[in-house]
Amino acid sequence: MSDSLDSRVTVADIAAEAGVSRATVSKVLNGRSDVAPATRSQIEALLATRGYVPTKRTKRPLHLPLPRVAPRRGGLLELVVSDVNSPWAAEVIRGAEQEARSARVGVVVSVLDSGPGHGQQWLEDIADRAPGGVILALSELNPADRSHIAKLALPAVLVDPVGDADGSIPSIGAGNWGGGMVAAQHLLELGHRRIGMITGPMRLLCSQARLAGYRAAVERAGITLDDDLVHHGDFHYGAGFEKAGILLDRADPPTAIFAGNDEQALGVYAAIQERGLRVPTDVSVVGFDDVPMAQWMAPPLTTVRQPIAKMAALAVRSLLGHQDGTEMTEGRVELSTKLVVRSSTHSCR
Amino acid sequence: MSDSLDSRVTVADIAAEAGVSRATVSKVLNGRSDVAPATRSQIEALLATRGYVPTKRTKRPLHLPLPRVAPRRGGLLELVVSDVNSPWAAEVIRGAEQEARSARVGVVVSVLDSGPGHGQQWLEDIADRAPGGVILALSELNPADRSHIAKLALPAVLVDPVGDADGSIPSIGAGNWGGGMVAAQHLLELGHRRIGMITGPMRLLCSQARLAGYRAAVERAGITLDDDLVHHGDFHYGAGFEKAGILLDRADPPTAIFAGNDEQALGVYAAIQERGLRVPTDVSVVGFDDVPMAQWMAPPLTTVRQPIAKMAALAVRSLLGHQDGTEMTEGRVELSTKLVVRSSTHSCR
Repeated sequence: MSDSLDSRVTVADIAAEAGVSRATVSKVLNGRSDVAPATRSQIEALLATRGYVPTKRTKRPLHLPLPRVAPRRGGLLELVVSDVNSPWAAEVIRGAEQEARSARVGVVVSVLDSGPGHGQQWLEDIADRAPGGVILALSELNPADRSHIAKLALPAVLVDPVGDADGSIPSIGAGNWGGGMVAAQHLLELGHRRIGMITGPMRLLCSQARLAGYRAAVERAGITLDDDLVHHGDFHYGAGFEKAGILLDRADPPTAIFAGNDEQALGVYAAIQERGLRVPTDVSVVGFDDVPMAQWMAPPLTTVRQPIAKMAALAVRSLLGHQDGTEMTEGRVELSTKLVVRSSTHSCR
Repeated sequence: MSDSLDSRVTVADIAAEAGVSRATVSKVLNGRSDVAPATRSQIEALLATRGYVPTKRTKRPLHLPLPRVAPRRGGLLELVVSDVNSPWAAEVIRGAEQEARSARVGVVVSVLDSGPGHGQQWLEDIADRAPGGVILALSELNPADRSHIAKLALPAVLVDPVGDADGSIPSIGAGNWGGGMVAAQHLLELGHRRIGMITGPMRLLCSQARLAGYRAAVERAGITLDDDLVHHGDFHYGAGFEKAGILLDRADPPTAIFAGNDEQALGVYAAIQERGLRVPTDVSVVGFDDVPMAQWMAPPLTTVRQPIAKMAALAVRSLLGHQDGTEMTEGRVELSTKLVVRSSTHSCR
């Protein structure tokens, strides 16, 4: 399903070739700043030229610890999402429901962190329904919940997990590092040299990987990254608006902004417009996700498409015991992202 | 839950007072043009001054034909939506899930009209799961499906049903007529006299009611409505863009546009921007729904808020046999809408 699945370059390979520890390579991948610039550049060049994609967090097969659920009419899977109003969650529901329905299995959708009945009750309720498996598409999963999920003794799969994923639950994600890289490369090819970035929450693995990909592309282009061009957001409109404002009000504002995700890009647009500037003639903007709204923004947003519905469908297939080839034999699977060029990016003047 | 529920003015009352047939009053309510202008004005004035709200399509109690479902841990309700990617559907899921979860009942979400397994299979699958009831939040429900649903012998409730609702299934909607009226009144109070409207699909009851409410407000203000200012859309971005373009390219373009819903308003924004004009200084825009995106548009959208999540929660409560008072004793219940003024509307120059 993804080119990245053919990759067999490991962190250990890169560490050996660079003559550094695996921890140092991990720091670079996670976008941390406590790595000497020369070392970082060397590692990033290796990651890029060797085509490293972080597909293999654990060697545990996706199915082995899980009882397989035979597709059965009338059967149920549970899908737990954290923010049902996000376009991201809608895509997860769409992908999971379509795949489950073709197996004539129902998808019970639960929303964590909204309204009454929070706490452990949601886990009891899932257990009561005796589903065939659980798909967790959550922005946060604390260790207590993780432990409770393990006690349910139900097959479980994480979709796009948070940064503390420890491999105890199989997970399906997108190539965030590659996506961050391709976003920055697109802007570099348009001649931009001062490219601001607004990250997601840095506790999320996907935020760290997008930042690391962006950093890799910028430094590969021979540009010393100005750390003041990187601001940490939270994937929401308000942070996009606020952090873009800080970037635009600098004495030397960036000519392009990588917004971290599409909702944040909307906030970036508003900050640009508020200053009497225009997208893309004054400032280019790139998002991440390609939610339906991206095509309707004014101007339509250049963004990195995540195969969100496919990720959810793959989670369903894994729980139903399908065998799709090698992609199903890993504890961590990543599907590739793709740059979608629309009208929010323009050559640097 | 809604002021409109206290209203007891009927179509028959209005017809008697105006000295016309009930069919003529229905034509006005449905936005049809085959009514003499003087008669229309008289009826609309009566509808407005008597505070008519179309709450009572049938006298059949919401519960009587339905076996009640006692809330039970491990129990299920089915929610069928037609376009899970719409912000509207996300709000329906959120409202239904929150209410059901507090009763410890699971919500199985099905998406009609996407992917494989369409046809009658979705109804068989629902029957196999033996849920306590079915909530249908569909943009279309054909007579064949309606008949099959009846054969399921399960309690069912429609949320925001289509125009062919015949009262055979209880339904919960919003005050679309009042919402259309308040949107137009807001623009009239800002001094606008040429107000364009882009409707939803005219086969939908909600589209007809919004148009009728708009027409009532305009004519109450003593303005003879120019029918060329009304264009029929489909609630999607493309129609908003195309129909707004036609309106803006007139020799005498409108100074304000009522976009029918929020997604269509996004298309209207794009058409305005493409012509080098600005919202709201050149053209004011009003949407309908108040989906989360409305607050992030540039500028933030003035719109009519539908209590979508509340409508879905009420559907769940009705299936679970709760008694919330008079609102639960009608075959058709409407919750009131509310104007949310943001930055897309401005005094007419």
